[in-house]
This record gives sequence, C-alpha cells and structure tokens, in this order.
Amino acid sequence: MSLEEEHISVQEEFEQIILTEDKLKIRDFLNNQNISDVAELIAENPDYDSQIIANMAIHRAAMVFKILDVTTQKDIIKQLPATKTAELLNELPADDRTDFLEELPRSTIRDLIKLLDPDERKVTLAMLGYPEDSVGRLMTPEYVYVYEHNSVAEVFETVRKYARGSETIDVIYVINEAGELVDDLRIRDVILAAPDKKVDDLIDGRVITLNVHDDQEHASQVFKMNNRVALPVVDDNDILLGIVTIDDMLWVADEEFSEDMQKMGGTEAFEEPYLDIPLLKLFKKRVGWLIILFLGELLTASVMRYFEDEIAKAVVLALFVPLIISSGGNSGSQASTLIIQAMAVGEITIADWWRVMRREIISGLLLGSVLGIIGFIRIAIWHSVFPDIYGDYWMPIGFTVGFSLIGIVLWGTLTGSMLPLLLKRCGADPAVSSAPFVATLVDVTGLVIYFSFAYLFLQGILL
Amino acid sequence: MSLEEEHISVQEEFEQIILTEDKLKIRDFLNNQNISDVAELIAENPDYDSQIIANMAIHRAAMVFKILDVTTQKDIIKQLPATKTAELLNELPADDRTDFLEELPRSTIRDLIKLLDPDERKVTLAMLGYPEDSVGRLMTPEYVYVYEHNSVAEVFETVRKYARGSETIDVIYVINEAGELVDDLRIRDVILAAPDKKVDDLIDGRVITLNVHDDQEHASQVFKMNNRVALPVVDDNDILLGIVTIDDMLWVADEEFSEDMQKMGGTEAFEEPYLDIPLLKLFKKRVGWLIILFLGELLTASVMRYFEDEIAKAVVLALFVPLIISSGGNSGSQASTLIIQAMAVGEITIADWWRVMRREIISGLLLGSVLGIIGFIRIAIWHSVFPDIYGDYWMPIGFTVGFSLIGIVLWGTLTGSMLPLLLKRCGADPAVSSAPFVATLVDVTGLVIYFSFAYLFLQGILL
Repeated sequence: MSLEEEHISVQEEFEQIILTEDKLKIRDFLNNQNISDVAELIAENPDYDSQIIANMAIHRAAMVFKILDVTTQKDIIKQLPATKTAELLNELPADDRTDFLEELPRSTIRDLIKLLDPDERKVTLAMLGYPEDSVGRLMTPEYVYVYEHNSVAEVFETVRKYARGSETIDVIYVINEAGELVDDLRIRDVILAAPDKKVDDLIDGRVITLNVHDDQEHASQVFKMNNRVALPVVDDNDILLGIVTIDDMLWVADEEFSEDMQKMGGTEAFEEPYLDIPLLKLFKKRVGWLIILFLGELLTASVMRYFEDEIAKAVVLALFVPLIISSGGNSGSQASTLIIQAMAVGEITIADWWRVMRREIISGLLLGSVLGIIGFIRIAIWHSVFPDIYGDYWMPIGFTVGFSLIGIVLWGTLTGSMLPLLLKRCGADPAVSSAPFVATLVDVTGLVIYFSFAYLFLQGILL
Repeated sequence: MSLEEEHISVQEEFEQIILTEDKLKIRDFLNNQNISDVAELIAENPDYDSQIIANMAIHRAAMVFKILDVTTQKDIIKQLPATKTAELLNELPADDRTDFLEELPRSTIRDLIKLLDPDERKVTLAMLGYPEDSVGRLMTPEYVYVYEHNSVAEVFETVRKYARGSETIDVIYVINEAGELVDDLRIRDVILAAPDKKVDDLIDGRVITLNVHDDQEHASQVFKMNNRVALPVVDDNDILLGIVTIDDMLWVADEEFSEDMQKMGGTEAFEEPYLDIPLLKLFKKRVGWLIILFLGELLTASVMRYFEDEIAKAVVLALFVPLIISSGGNSGSQASTLIIQAMAVGEITIADWWRVMRREIISGLLLGSVLGIIGFIRIAIWHSVFPDIYGDYWMPIGFTVGFSLIGIVLWGTLTGSMLPLLLKRCGADPAVSSAPFVATLVDVTGLVIYFSFAYLFLQGILL
C-alpha cells in the first residue's frame, strides 16, 4: 500500500462524498482518514478547507490544522464561526497555537486570545513573551511529572491519569517539592522495573535540559546529539517549565534551511510560501539587496572610467573584462557558500579561521592557475588561427589575462571564505555574505588587479 | 545548570583524570558523563579518542561512536584492537553501522563485516543492498512486534522481554501470522488499556508506512506531517522489515541541506567535513564546475570581440559592461535561489511553472525599472557635475544603460526562475542551477542585450 496509491483514492472518494452534502457521511469519512491525508485533501481542495476542518472531530481537526501552512490556517479561521475557532484554538497544543498566533496582526491576536480558556490563555501569553526563535516558543506544558519519592506503581497511576492530555509519555519528568527538575525517566525503564521500586532507584541524575531562552537551532543540535524524543525546558533557576518534542525540530531545521538559502540568494527571509506571498511584498523583500548590490557595482563604472584612457589605447583589454570579473565572482561565490554551509552545520567555528585561510590560499592558487593556463592557451590558439586578432602582442596579452586570473581567483577565494567568518565575528549572520554580495565585492577589486597586470605586461607596448 | 558551564568543568575534570592513567578512575568518570559530553571530549582531545572509546562501557561507547563524524570514527577504528572493534560494531544499531561502513573502502568493509556476529552480519549485508539515500539504509531491525490476537497483558510481557534490545518501545507493531504489518500501537494506548483487552480492540487500522525503497527525503516529509516518533518500513508485499526513528530524520535534513548548499555554490557535494577533506580532493570537487563556468564565460570574450569596433568608437560603452552584466547575474542568482529553496521545501512543483513565470515577469520588470532609473539618474548627476564625461550624448547613453538594465534584470529573473523548474522537468537536480551557473548564462546574453540597446539609442550619434 504505497502512499501515492492510497492518496489518489482518498481524493476520489472525497469528491464523491462532498457532493452528497451529507454531513454525517462527510464527518465519518474524514474521521477515518490519516491526518496527513486530510491535510493533502485541504491542499487540493482549498475551497472546502474550513468545511473539512469544521466537519472533523475537534482533536483531529487540531492535528490537521497544526500541519497546514499559515496562509491556509488564516483562511480557515476567517471562515469558521467564533465558537468553532475557540474550540479549535483550545484544542491546539500550546506550541503550535503560539506559532500560529505570532504570524497574525496584533489586533487579531488580541481577539483570538479572548476566545481561549483562562488556563490556555495564561500559557499562550507566557509563551508569546519569549523571543521568537527561542526554545520558549516551542515548548508545551503538556507532559507528565512525578516526584522522586514515588513508587513505580504510583508512576503508572499518574501516567494513567494525565497521559491523555500530555503530548508524550515516552519520557516522564522527575521533580522535587520546589518544582526543580531532578531527572527524566524513560517509560521503558518504568515498564521494565518492579512495581515496588522507587523513582529514586531508577534515575541516574544524567538529565539534559534546554534553557527557555536557548536558541531553537541550539535545541536542534542537542536533540541530534542525544537520542531523545523530548527534552525538558527549565528557567535559570532549574524550575521545569515545559518540554520540547523532537518532531518540532524537523520544522526548525526546515525554517533554518529556508532562511539561510533566502539570505544567500540575496533576499530578506520571508515567512510565507513563495506562491502565497503578495507580489508587492515579494518585490520589497528583493529590491533592497539588489539596490545595495547595484550601488556597489556602480563603483565598477568609476574604476573603468579611471582606466578609460588605457581602454581607448588598447580596446583588446575591454574584451576580457567580463571574463575576468566573473571568474573572481564565481570562485568567491563557491568559497563563501562552502564556508557558510560548513559553519551552519557546525564544522567550522571562528577559531578555525587560520586553518581555513591556509587551505583557501592554496586552493585559490591552484584553481587560479588552472583557469589562468586555460585562458592563456585560449589566446594562444586564437592567435594561431586568426593571427590578426591580437597582433604581435598576443603573448603579453596572454600573460596579462593569465596572471590576472590567478590573482583574481585567489582574491575571490580568500574574500569569499573570510567574509562569513568576519561577519560571524562581528555578530552578524554569515549567510548575509551571499554569492551576489561576494561577487560584487570581488568585481570592483578584480578590475584593479586586471589593469595592474596590464600595466606590468603592456606598458611601453600597447599602453 | 547551563550546558556551557557543565561542559567546561567536564573538560577540566577529564584533563586531571586522564593524567592519573588510572584505568578504573577514567572508566568510572566516562561512564558518568552524558553521551554528548563524551562526544565533545573526543572532539577537543582527538589524541585520546580511541582511549576514551576503549575505556567506556560498550553500549555507551556505541552511543558515543554513532554521533562522531566519519573521520574521527575511522581514526578510532584504526587504533582499536580487533576484538574491541568487533564488540563496538556488534553493539552499534544496524542503521548507524551501515552508515559508517558505507563511508569506507570496499576492502575495509569486507574485513569489518567478518568481525560481526552471524545475525548482525546478515542484517548489515541486507541493508547495504538498498540504494544509498533510500529508507532501507536508515531502518533498524530492533523493534517490538506483537500479534493481533495478543492481550494487553501479553503485550507487556513481550515488551519486558524484548525492550532492552529495541531502539524504541514508544510504538509497537502489530503483525499477522504472515508477517504482514497490520497496524502500529502507541505504548501510551497500551498503558491506558485494561489488561484483558485484545490488541485487536486497540488498533484503528490507520497505519502510515514507508516503503524500503522510498527516498529518505520523502520519509522526512512523512514524519513532519504525522507526529510519530517512529514509522514502520515494509517491502512491496507489506511485510514488516524494520522501523525508522525520527532522530535519524534530523541527520537526513542536515545532509540534504549541505548537499543542496554545496551544489548551489558550484561545487560537487562532499561527504566529509570541510576541515577534514584532503586539500587535493577539495580542489578536485571545486575545479570541475569552475572550468565549466570559465568555458562559458569565454563566450563573453567572443561577444565582446564581435562588438569591438563599437567599443573602439565609443569607449564609454565599455565602462558600463561590468555594471550591466553583474546586475543580470545578481537578479538571476536571487531568483534561482528563491525557486530552488521553494522547491526543496515543497512549496512549488513543476505544475506551478506558469504561475511562477507570471510572477517573475512582473517582479523582473519592477526590479529592472528600479535599477534602470537609478542608473539613469546616476548618469544624469555625473553629467551635471562633470559635464565632459559623457559630453552632449549623456541622454542617449543614459537611455542605453537604463533600458539595458530593465531588459537584463527581466531576463536574469526569468532565466533564474525557470531554469530550476526546467532541470527538474528533465530529471536533473534543480540545485545544480546554482547562482554562478545562472550568472554565467545571463552574462553572455546580457552583453547582446546591452549592445542592441546601444545600437538603438546611439546609432548615427556615436556608432
């Protein structure tokens, strides 16, 4: 039973059933589908989105709602009656509710929070108080806790009592009377223990915690290194505030990825999916960086103007300008992307700058030499086929192009690799040193390198 | 107790204890640290890596070993005595073992596989038979299964018996006598049920499965949409082969991210961390794309040569060449990165090409107009300050530059956005249409656009 096959039949069945307009039948059908299949139904039948949510058992509706994209969520809330919205919001896990609310305008948040139960309202307001991208926004207060002095039998009793409302019972948290976290306990160890054992005997004191102010990316790293399905969140006094579950980390990883990519492409990060973002907003997010890059590139016109007389004397110099500057740009983009990626997954830190620099100087020289030799050979071949293109001076022209390529590729590689580290050192986001940014930086200086080599090889000949 | 503070003291304590050379003390110390702390100790004390692994309880050593990077893993295996290596490999979960083995040369794999227990050997060889990047490589045979006709009490008995060796007991799998997967069962539902209930009464038949040949990226999507900590893996006949746990998905996401980034920076993907990859290999992975891009850029020299007479007549045209081509490159990089990212997270499919194209035509026109107007104004201002730069012809020159910018930014945006979709359509990886690749493509055509506008506005004046 592949997911694809299953999916086609679900969509077909849905089309038949929705046409009957039989509420009971629709409800029955929806309640018997997988959560992900219902989410796909909504994606493929956007006109029926609120109807689908309204016709499901409320706890299942909440599970579907939380995996929809924000645009669809907003669309559904707009159409649902207020009572249904209240039910839905109350049913959502606190972390997903906070996540949804923070995407809305302030006035809408206020209206929606009014719909919540007093308890849920308190939790939501508390979570909205933590910085975006902090662990506080991801945590859920729905977990099971026990005390050190409880017996295994008592733990089971607690689990039976509170498990329905908790997001996971795979891990149970042990606290003391002050509310401080003492340890965590895997349900497997409880099941394997004799009923009269005490919690105290089962715990080993090796608990891994997240601080409520920790960065979400940090949390993702901790999960990766520690084989846990959930981690406890504490404040600065070790008081247990909530837990974060590993499934949220998959979304964090996705978001980090999208943000980094967008920055590296030279746009501001945007939260909505590409096709849902209004055109004007899409334009605004893109135009800023393009203008900055353009203003940087305007300097190339000034540099070229500075060498205008040389170009007039030897037009042949102009022919290689695009080749030269783009080679610098390409090697720079390559190096910066490599380093940004290695930093993002934690392979390189600022402390490694000298090792990186050494490697990139050697790489740059090697790469530049390869391109320089190809460039020289190209000019030599063209000269032997069409002797009048470069005239008698093909060799100094060839040397100018060849050595410029070595210099520019080396310079591009070095700039591209050091800039992300420098930005990080200054507290900025390394991903900002995007390919276009490095390319622009290298273009301007590349022209100076090129014309300097031209002086060296062509002075007294063409210049 | 923040992770940072804790960590510093662990390193300090380690330094003191390792100097005592007291094996018992070292072993005792290591067995009382968190797995992630030991992994960090190894990262910071690479000289002691094999000693640390050798001095830990074997099941804890395996947990540390599986989160180390491949280079460190290889280094450790090289130094460990064969008996210790055998113990370690047998203790590793099957998925992590396969993952490690596939990084090694064939002859080493053969030697290491000989060290395995017959049972483990069978499992490992089977897993190595599935394609890389397939779900088969990630699955572990260590799970708990029960039959439909079992009672809750019997389930507990099975769990007690087999839980130690299974990677998760948070989910239990229900199979029939033929070995076909019937359903999965969360341990929470078992705990909450009366002991005399039958498994049959607890299951709902809504099981989500992965096929053993599914792509790992697909698996990551399924996890994200379905709030599960583990998913069962079946073959084409629905026979349960193993399970995949959600923590592996965090590594899959990281790998996807790194691969995409590397391709987008214009290098081949590489598996080792940046600082560990030998310099010559690093050079090889980078030089290929740079040469291809360089050969593409060589066409710009030919295009420039074609317009050499025009440049000789109006050297002023040469001044804006870098500005023009890099603006095309920047807008193209921006568009391609945006679309590749949106495709990577599933926001855009090939079917959306027309919607994407429509949006990008409008975006390109808007972005190009902004840059074109800035370019024109720049020339106008320079003319009013230094009247002899562009002479009487500043206005047609301004129009040439302004309209070229509109044309080139539109063209760059369109190329950048359509190329990833086109590559996907042809079955290639969209990430290959990296920023440098799009920039190079746009450079050559950009020159043609520029000189065409020059003819239009300057013919009979300067040309």
